[in-house]
Amino acid sequence: MSIHVFVLEMKKLLRSLDGCIDKAVAYAQTKKFDPNVLMQSRLAPDMFPFVRQVQATCDQAKYAVSRVTGREPPSHPDNEQTMDDLKKRIATVVGYLDEYSEKDFANLADRSVTTPRWEGKSMTAVNYFVEHAQPNFYFHLTTAYAILRHNGVDVGKRDFLGQLTWR
Amino acid sequence: MSIHVFVLEMKKLLRSLDGCIDKAVAYAQTKKFDPNVLMQSRLAPDMFPFVRQVQATCDQAKYAVSRVTGREPPSHPDNEQTMDDLKKRIATVVGYLDEYSEKDFANLADRSVTTPRWEGKSMTAVNYFVEHAQPNFYFHLTTAYAILRHNGVDVGKRDFLGQLTWR
Repeated sequence: MSIHVFVLEMKKLLRSLDGCIDKAVAYAQTKKFDPNVLMQSRLAPDMFPFVRQVQATCDQAKYAVSRVTGREPPSHPDNEQTMDDLKKRIATVVGYLDEYSEKDFANLADRSVTTPRWEGKSMTAVNYFVEHAQPNFYFHLTTAYAILRHNGVDVGKRDFLGQLTWR
Repeated sequence: MSIHVFVLEMKKLLRSLDGCIDKAVAYAQTKKFDPNVLMQSRLAPDMFPFVRQVQATCDQAKYAVSRVTGREPPSHPDNEQTMDDLKKRIATVVGYLDEYSEKDFANLADRSVTTPRWEGKSMTAVNYFVEHAQPNFYFHLTTAYAILRHNGVDVGKRDFLGQLTWR
């Protein structure tokens, strides 16, 4: 089994998040409020607002593939001002993940990953993916979804999971 | 790479959730409210409360390993009344995951998974794990965490992620 199948899932879930933003915008139109109000919504005063949750979800996916394979990730300045900007950010990251295929994730056994925050420490590429990239990705993705849900947007588990691959 | 590394991560995250419950109980004691009030807290009126989020997190982990390997999962009646009952439920599932080792996840290519809800449809074991079990696990785990955070419990990302394995 290759890490690539988990990357394909990240891509699907990013598209699901894009669909949840569409539902949020439609909800705002129905209730006649500015959809961009949701950008600054949060679940606790010392927790990131929706805009940062989406940016972080995108970054975790981007860093997951680039760090695991040893490539330089593209830079994104976190300057999104609208829900439409967030949809573009998601599309950019989905496009970036599209550049990766299963062969990029072969022979990871000797690869190490580190980040500037880790003060010289490192993890194996697999441990980084399993213990850091993926839990962080799901953390921010689910929190973004929960912020919309908390604000009354009509999203459900199916919007989160997306279409399953039947045998 | 074996699915087992992702199972070990589920186990670690369940222990993290147990630690978050400890922090919730301590917070309740400091603020002098009954910690079991948090059992029925939710982020939206039509979303599961904390108790159901924790039960679902446990179930997703339990079903992940049992369905992928073709074993019969143990039954848990969802009758937890207190935060302490939830800690016991988590410990039970962690103990169940402890029964599995890497060899149990070998040769999954031909295995199919189905559930009573799928009306005869099935998924490959790997697709089930990647597209269903794991996203559902993280969905309920993160929502449980978010409910505590929303209610003022002093938990942070480190409490969620747990200890990383340095190289």
